[in-house]
Amino acid sequence: MTADAATALRIHGGRIDVAEKGYPDAPRPWIDLSTGINPIAYPIPPLPPSWFARLPLTSEIDDLCAAAAGAYGLPDGAAMLPVPGSEIAIRLAPRVLVAPGAIACVGILAPTYGSHAAAWRAAGAEVQELSALPDLQAPLDAVVLVNPNNPDGRLIAQDALAAFAERWSAAGKRLVVDEAFGDLAPEASLLRGGPLRRGVVVLRSLGKFFGLAGLRLGFVAMNADEAQRWRDLLGDWAASGPACAIATMALRDRDWIEAARSRLAEDRRRLDATLAAAELRPCGGTDLFGLYESADESDLVDRFARAGILIRGFAHSPRLYRFGLPGDDAGWQRLAQTCARLEN
Amino acid sequence: MTADAATALRIHGGRIDVAEKGYPDAPRPWIDLSTGINPIAYPIPPLPPSWFARLPLTSEIDDLCAAAAGAYGLPDGAAMLPVPGSEIAIRLAPRVLVAPGAIACVGILAPTYGSHAAAWRAAGAEVQELSALPDLQAPLDAVVLVNPNNPDGRLIAQDALAAFAERWSAAGKRLVVDEAFGDLAPEASLLRGGPLRRGVVVLRSLGKFFGLAGLRLGFVAMNADEAQRWRDLLGDWAASGPACAIATMALRDRDWIEAARSRLAEDRRRLDATLAAAELRPCGGTDLFGLYESADESDLVDRFARAGILIRGFAHSPRLYRFGLPGDDAGWQRLAQTCARLEN
Repeated sequence: MTADAATALRIHGGRIDVAEKGYPDAPRPWIDLSTGINPIAYPIPPLPPSWFARLPLTSEIDDLCAAAAGAYGLPDGAAMLPVPGSEIAIRLAPRVLVAPGAIACVGILAPTYGSHAAAWRAAGAEVQELSALPDLQAPLDAVVLVNPNNPDGRLIAQDALAAFAERWSAAGKRLVVDEAFGDLAPEASLLRGGPLRRGVVVLRSLGKFFGLAGLRLGFVAMNADEAQRWRDLLGDWAASGPACAIATMALRDRDWIEAARSRLAEDRRRLDATLAAAELRPCGGTDLFGLYESADESDLVDRFARAGILIRGFAHSPRLYRFGLPGDDAGWQRLAQTCARLEN
Repeated sequence: MTADAATALRIHGGRIDVAEKGYPDAPRPWIDLSTGINPIAYPIPPLPPSWFARLPLTSEIDDLCAAAAGAYGLPDGAAMLPVPGSEIAIRLAPRVLVAPGAIACVGILAPTYGSHAAAWRAAGAEVQELSALPDLQAPLDAVVLVNPNNPDGRLIAQDALAAFAERWSAAGKRLVVDEAFGDLAPEASLLRGGPLRRGVVVLRSLGKFFGLAGLRLGFVAMNADEAQRWRDLLGDWAASGPACAIATMALRDRDWIEAARSRLAEDRRRLDATLAAAELRPCGGTDLFGLYESADESDLVDRFARAGILIRGFAHSPRLYRFGLPGDDAGWQRLAQTCARLEN
């Protein structure tokens, strides 16, 4: 394991190729628990070649957006646009929200997904880490938060967040609420509350709950008066044909959504119980992943990797680890066996 | 046919849903000749569900970029990044190339694909239409051109364009060369020439020649020193899993590429011959589409639409029409029959 590989494994989950190179002797196949992606993805239907060949029709994109509004909610006077993965919306948000050339100061509720800070810094903003929602008087132009948060699952209730959004935006400040894991806490979504004020942006993702990270599809919702600035950057065909068709189906499939929520809640309880054998204490998460504190300082990314299991460590919190859910019995068994061995 | 629908059909090709509503009595299926997309697309292989589920690995994105460099060429010291459709690269180019807050003046070789002007105007730039490459002394910060051009096929030879790019960029000015149809004129591509100077950007697309517009994949190439600004806006996963895998295959498939070039050249000659029956005179194009001048002022978009054939008209050139290639014998026959009827 090279130092570079170890660092890469602590920056973003899912780097199975890096892990394989770093641990060539680990048992195969690798079990990837380093992400918060549902391992039992929405089933991919047969894909007519025409979905790849032609651009999605306006009517198909309208259907996609209607399906998203149906699944997520959408306040009156708000607009929802598809994006090719919510990552790109994270990257574009500072460019849309801050006037060109204005140096912004953004507060980000930390710790959280690293791309938010990277995007604002790249746009020239000064980034401050926040531990709670700031006062209106705080010298900030924008606030970014992930709700529920990754990796600790911190959840801000809808009424509290809506009240903050109202006051914050009334003061001419911007708010980005990344609801990438919002399918696990629909009651907290700003999309199920009152109007989205100008300057408030909500992000959603098909990647996590539906297990379709490779599809690259997300949504950005905002006050309809501010939709044109996003359209200007995204153009008319931000969603691929397959993404358009598959996501429209997935978002309308209430039975699958309900069944997945139940199964994930059950699997999350099983994950806590399984990791207890390795003296890993749950300290947050959602039903797609848990954050755990280890009893000592040993490097568990390394120890699990030797067993062919990729987990997520954090550069600045050496005793905290994020575990996603195994997708099958073989995965659960290897995880349990590895935990049992760690105790010795 | 409503006025709105007629306008929509003249803004962008491929709007079969709009055409169907406007002409409910036209014969089905509609034959879409309104785009410059290869109607015989690169064949879609079986798609493992994992391509949709997980993010593309770094190694897979590296493979994709290597395949693109192999197919398109890539000068020493240049970088090539995948984008989710070249449309989004067109939209982002002004943001990458012009300092935030600086009001730019851009010259666009016209007439051409409308999104370039839309993107620069949305970024606050002043847009001038050019009929040829400008003098160095022209009061322009940037030039945009499509090579070969859509819809007229105007081609600037590589040596002339490279010499212009060298002088233009040395003067601190920007150049965007959209090679969306560059697969039909590889000898003219800037990617097969000398180094890409700072401020020069080249766009490529999988949508046209490979017939994979729904896949949403393109590339942006630039001097490697300027790649980070694009990465900052695109993030690490701009290409979907299916796009990554299918495009890597397609770009490496030299046999398919050669066969498609030959077939398209032959079909383009057949298109000219077929349309001659309707007194349509070829006045430009590439092997993916032809631009034709009609003998009179009658509205051929309307007359072909009544026969279930969607072609492309242009708001400001009422006697010019762009025709793409039929994809099968039935399409060729209906086109020929419709041309014969038009004469009467």
